[in-house]
Order: sequence, then C-alpha cells, then structure tokens
Amino acid sequence: MSQETITYRPIGIIHSPFKEAKGSPIQGVFSRGAEGVVEVFEQFADGLCDLELFSHIYLLYDLHRAGRLSLTVVPFVDDQPHGVFATRAPSRPNGIGLSIVRVLARDGCQIRVVELDVLDGTPLLDIKPYVPYFDHRQSANSGWMKDPAGKQIAREADERFHQ
Amino acid sequence: MSQETITYRPIGIIHSPFKEAKGSPIQGVFSRGAEGVVEVFEQFADGLCDLELFSHIYLLYDLHRAGRLSLTVVPFVDDQPHGVFATRAPSRPNGIGLSIVRVLARDGCQIRVVELDVLDGTPLLDIKPYVPYFDHRQSANSGWMKDPAGKQIAREADERFHQ
Repeated sequence: MSQETITYRPIGIIHSPFKEAKGSPIQGVFSRGAEGVVEVFEQFADGLCDLELFSHIYLLYDLHRAGRLSLTVVPFVDDQPHGVFATRAPSRPNGIGLSIVRVLARDGCQIRVVELDVLDGTPLLDIKPYVPYFDHRQSANSGWMKDPAGKQIAREADERFHQ
Repeated sequence: MSQETITYRPIGIIHSPFKEAKGSPIQGVFSRGAEGVVEVFEQFADGLCDLELFSHIYLLYDLHRAGRLSLTVVPFVDDQPHGVFATRAPSRPNGIGLSIVRVLARDGCQIRVVELDVLDGTPLLDIKPYVPYFDHRQSANSGWMKDPAGKQIAREADERFHQ
C-alpha cells in the first residue's frame, strides 16, 4: 500500500442555497432548479475562457462536511448496504464530489449555475466541460439501483453522512 | 484566496497498456477497446461490494504525469486556445482526471475494465458508479467543440501536456 499523499488547493468556492445536508438534494437531477454561484479565485480567471459556451459542466470539489469514512454504507436510495465505491455517498476514503450542473451565465470569475446539489461553502477543486460525445454512455445500466427513474427513492439527504 | 490545502491518499493504482502520453487515447471513446486493470489496495476491499453490478464506473485519479500548469491551452481537438477549465487537458491547477470506463469483471480488489484512456501506473483516488439517471444530460451541447462526433479530430495524445 502506498503512503504517498497528494495535495490540492481549492481554486474557488461553491455558493449554494443548501446550508445543511438535511433536506438538500442527493443529486442534481433532484435539485428542483436550485441555483448557485461557482466563484473561481481571480488568479485562475484565464482558465475560464470559453467555459460559458458549454451548457453543462462538471464540478469536482472536496466533500468538506462529510462525516467519518465508512466502506460499507446504506445509501439514501436503498435500504440495503453496499460498498461505498458502488454508491455516491460522501463517506469515501478520498472525499471528492462530482456534480454535473447547467451553466446559466458567466460574469468574470462568477459562474451562475442551476441543478446544483452541493452544500454552501464547498471548496472547488476543478471544472471540466461536459461533452456528450465523451460522457454519454447510452448502454449503461444502473447496477443495484435497477430503475431509479421509476422507483420511489429518496431525493433529499438526511444527516447520516455529514457532520 | 484560500491557502488551505486538501490532502488525499491513493486508494489504488491503474494498470493500462499506455506507458507514454504520445499515442494514448485522449478520451475513453477513442480507446479502441483498450483494456486495463484497476487495482484497489486491500484495505479498501469492503468498499467494492456490488461495484461489479454496474456496467460503467467513473475513475477519479491523479494526473501524475501532467506537465506544468497552463491556464490557457490549445487542446488536442482544436487549433485555437481555450481556458483550461473549458477543456479536458491535463495541465490543470488540480490535476484530477476523470474517466468513464466499462466494467468487464471484478476479482476481489482487481477490476478489469475496457474503454480506458489512462496512463499506466496512475494513482487512483476514487471510484463512483455511473448512473444514467443521474449522469445523462440529453440536452447538453458541446460548447466550442461543436460536433466532435462529426469532425476529424485528434484521437490520440502527443506530449504537449506531459512530462
């Protein structure tokens, strides 16, 4: 096992209406139009050129409010335990969050986005464009979730994974 | 600007046929069936339970061979410069890579995958299930790439972004 560490620094901060895990959407598709602002620090401004041409972007961020690591979790959308890597739960060894959000507008270093499922004040690590030709997998199944669109599943978080 | 640092530790290592950037696929869709093995360290084995039920997974990893940071880049798929956050180029402030790969089989802590676009020996940070209901964005555009499927674009990397 490697003892190597990898160090990153936030490139910005995510401002959202969700102050607490409880009641916040567990995925962007459940956000009911929640808007927020992705603020990128001024020193990275040049990196944002043309970002606003994309309708959707990935946000990668540190799950800074995640509670303690748990390798086996009962996720929000099921009543059975699964390995944490087979879920989107935040109690991961490396708490890196991944969201797809829709871009409304960019004003300098501020990107207004919608379909947000991120807690307010979350440290931003990276932004990447979402490119359907790279990122769609039409044939993908949903694993143990089977048919999440057709099921009555939880759409909001409770506090089980957060501090 | 925040001076805060965020530290992660690799949870495994990605074994792939691509030893050098030059000639390696720039995205999984261009991998021409490249297979590899995602090796997760034994201590995280419990986290993998049920992962094999998913056809596709996200790999998050450290772009350990990326060259120096550049906020403005001419990416592989265009001849014009763009902000690095509007590209998938590896020369990012935080070199976190994101790939979607197809799962062939899991044998304990070894996951055989295909459609791989990652360099051999890459430190693995996280695995998440790819869930179409969460991750498809049917209406997404392709920003400055316009129609990557219909264009004659580069499918293999050269060495511009690597060391």
